Amino acid sequence: MSRFLEVIDVPGAVATAIRIAPDPVPEEIPADEAPGRVTCTDVTANADIPGFDRSIVDGFAVRAEDTSGATDSAPALLRSTGRVAMGEPDGGLAVAPGNCVYVPTGGVLPKGADAVVMVEHTDTEGETVLVKRPVAHGENVLMHDEDYRRGEVILPAGRRITPQDAGVLAACGKVSLTVAKKPVIGIISTGNELVPVTAVPGPGQVRDANTSMLVAYLREYGCTPRVYGIVRDERESFEATLAKALPECDVVLISGGSSKDDRDMTASVIARMGEVLVHGITIAPGKPTIIGTIGKTPVFGLPGHPASAYVVLLVIVRPLLAHMLGEKKTAITTTRATLGSNIPSQKGREEYVRVKLANGIAHPIFGKAGLLNTLVESDGLVCVAAGQEGLEQGTEVDVILW
Amino acid sequence: MSRFLEVIDVPGAVATAIRIAPDPVPEEIPADEAPGRVTCTDVTANADIPGFDRSIVDGFAVRAEDTSGATDSAPALLRSTGRVAMGEPDGGLAVAPGNCVYVPTGGVLPKGADAVVMVEHTDTEGETVLVKRPVAHGENVLMHDEDYRRGEVILPAGRRITPQDAGVLAACGKVSLTVAKKPVIGIISTGNELVPVTAVPGPGQVRDANTSMLVAYLREYGCTPRVYGIVRDERESFEATLAKALPECDVVLISGGSSKDDRDMTASVIARMGEVLVHGITIAPGKPTIIGTIGKTPVFGLPGHPASAYVVLLVIVRPLLAHMLGEKKTAITTTRATLGSNIPSQKGREEYVRVKLANGIAHPIFGKAGLLNTLVESDGLVCVAAGQEGLEQGTEVDVILW
Repeated sequence: MSRFLEVIDVPGAVATAIRIAPDPVPEEIPADEAPGRVTCTDVTANADIPGFDRSIVDGFAVRAEDTSGATDSAPALLRSTGRVAMGEPDGGLAVAPGNCVYVPTGGVLPKGADAVVMVEHTDTEGETVLVKRPVAHGENVLMHDEDYRRGEVILPAGRRITPQDAGVLAACGKVSLTVAKKPVIGIISTGNELVPVTAVPGPGQVRDANTSMLVAYLREYGCTPRVYGIVRDERESFEATLAKALPECDVVLISGGSSKDDRDMTASVIARMGEVLVHGITIAPGKPTIIGTIGKTPVFGLPGHPASAYVVLLVIVRPLLAHMLGEKKTAITTTRATLGSNIPSQKGREEYVRVKLANGIAHPIFGKAGLLNTLVESDGLVCVAAGQEGLEQGTEVDVILW
Repeated sequence: MSRFLEVIDVPGAVATAIRIAPDPVPEEIPADEAPGRVTCTDVTANADIPGFDRSIVDGFAVRAEDTSGATDSAPALLRSTGRVAMGEPDGGLAVAPGNCVYVPTGGVLPKGADAVVMVEHTDTEGETVLVKRPVAHGENVLMHDEDYRRGEVILPAGRRITPQDAGVLAACGKVSLTVAKKPVIGIISTGNELVPVTAVPGPGQVRDANTSMLVAYLREYGCTPRVYGIVRDERESFEATLAKALPECDVVLISGGSSKDDRDMTASVIARMGEVLVHGITIAPGKPTIIGTIGKTPVFGLPGHPASAYVVLLVIVRPLLAHMLGEKKTAITTTRATLGSNIPSQKGREEYVRVKLANGIAHPIFGKAGLLNTLVESDGLVCVAAGQEGLEQGTEVDVILW
């Protein structure tokens, strides 16, 4: 057993998880595959965007000074000398003093002009345009570098790419970009009571729920899960499976059986092959969590109960994954709600209580450890800090949404 | 042109979108692919879960009445008659009055026992177990049907499957399930000013940002986007592309050029081939939106500005997609925040203002229409209702998160 074996608080466990997290590995991918991935470097514009001065309305390109003082009763009279077509250069349609040129929304502002009068504020009589409102220099014009200037950062490093970002990348002509490689996360389930999803459990047996849950979570978070199946609580097969997983994975998650004997085996196997850094966290549910390393590979022992495993995944493992992806902003979404009833808690441990949201009220769902239905019925978690003895009904709380 | 051409408010536009939405088409898929998909039918348990009475602690299975009145100083003395092994039947270890049997967390409660005393509340002297606290009938036991009873609904129809749901499906032995087929959504970009992402725009040209944005959004939402590329504002090629897309898609989104002429062409082409139901919505940005049908296929004309197109996608198109997926709960996530500055708005239109969140304050980002950078810099939208003339600084608002 490692000498560093200790029970620690949640911030300590998170700090340990981040400390052992491998750094992001950059890889270049087509922009088409970028959404959901995390940028590894700043993405910069290699040209001004939009690239030319554009009208943002349908109207007449003018010299602003020519419209000074224009009103309905005393319009400025300008001579229309042509039209700019969409997607075309201005075709030499320079706007001389006293002249104007029609330009559609998105069209090029012709030379000489410095503003656009909306068509709604004009009347046309033959070649004469009656401008009934003055415009200021630059009005209704998007300057050639107003969206992005050449060399400016479009997306910072560490950003998870959204659909809007995909649009911006396209506008800037990015056909590929450098993102963090998807971490490969091994999943081993242990427990003599576990049978595969396809089996009909015999007396005393249950199906392995954690593997499916972990796979789905890791995929959603942008990792590549790798399943090693169920191992029985026998040191030899457990060690053989772990030895197979280590060179193939960046991190290994061992979802433990639920008896004390099982947990002891996970810790002792990690200690034999590497080092146990944390054995027990002051978190509820999820106390019997193990954090260790074998070589440089982080290895977690997660609780067997799906609800406990999921809380540990969100609170302890996610920061490690975020580090491996280089993600700057937490992916946790919270919403404010009013607590619908008291939550008693034990001081000295950080307690995560499942809640159901209805009309801004967070109703705690209390249930025995090991109940799966509360995971489905709840909308998220409320955290009772370690220093608190509970939360009172009516308190404003942040709900961590699933 | 259709006689039903009209400018309508947002609720009217949403109602129209939902009215023309095709119903969900069920398909059976492996459970492994279920996360993110939407259930089409109730998923029910075909056996009790967990399936046997289980201990939820490490301890001694007892008859509760044998522990009545037990204290530290006057413990109940019980005879230990064996141990239940994890994953095994109780092996005939029935608990007779005055006896107890060791059972690990998750182990089978042996016959005769009706509760479990935590090992922490006992001492052992040879074969004698000193129980120092009384337990009630059922204490520390998860009954065989306490999680799900045979026939009970595990996941209701219309639920988007989460990672936790994947765990619950596994626990219940579901290897496949019926979900809504991914709607195939055609995307056509129109505009003489548009060039593909790979091109270097000439004077007056910009790259097509909307296609990439729409593709990413639709994939994230669980649809299959189908890209038909850029068509110039020429009726013949436009109609040919639309005619090709219609039989291949469940819905077609036409992202318009930004000039008035372009928009007129989208509307008139839809009117020639089918029916225009809505032309103009009292929404900002996004007013020049078209909703129509060709045959039974919904066809949308979206604004060309990415920011406008995205707002219309979220507010008007998403409810149609939700209907096609049979999704019961909106996928919109909101968070409460305090408005950092006044938002002026025009009464009579529903205005969506991009905001940046910092420490619970929503800072409106005002910018010219057509700026892409505000899509990246903002965290979501604040809606100013059509009946309001604006929102004052300090107001509590719901921010629709991207």
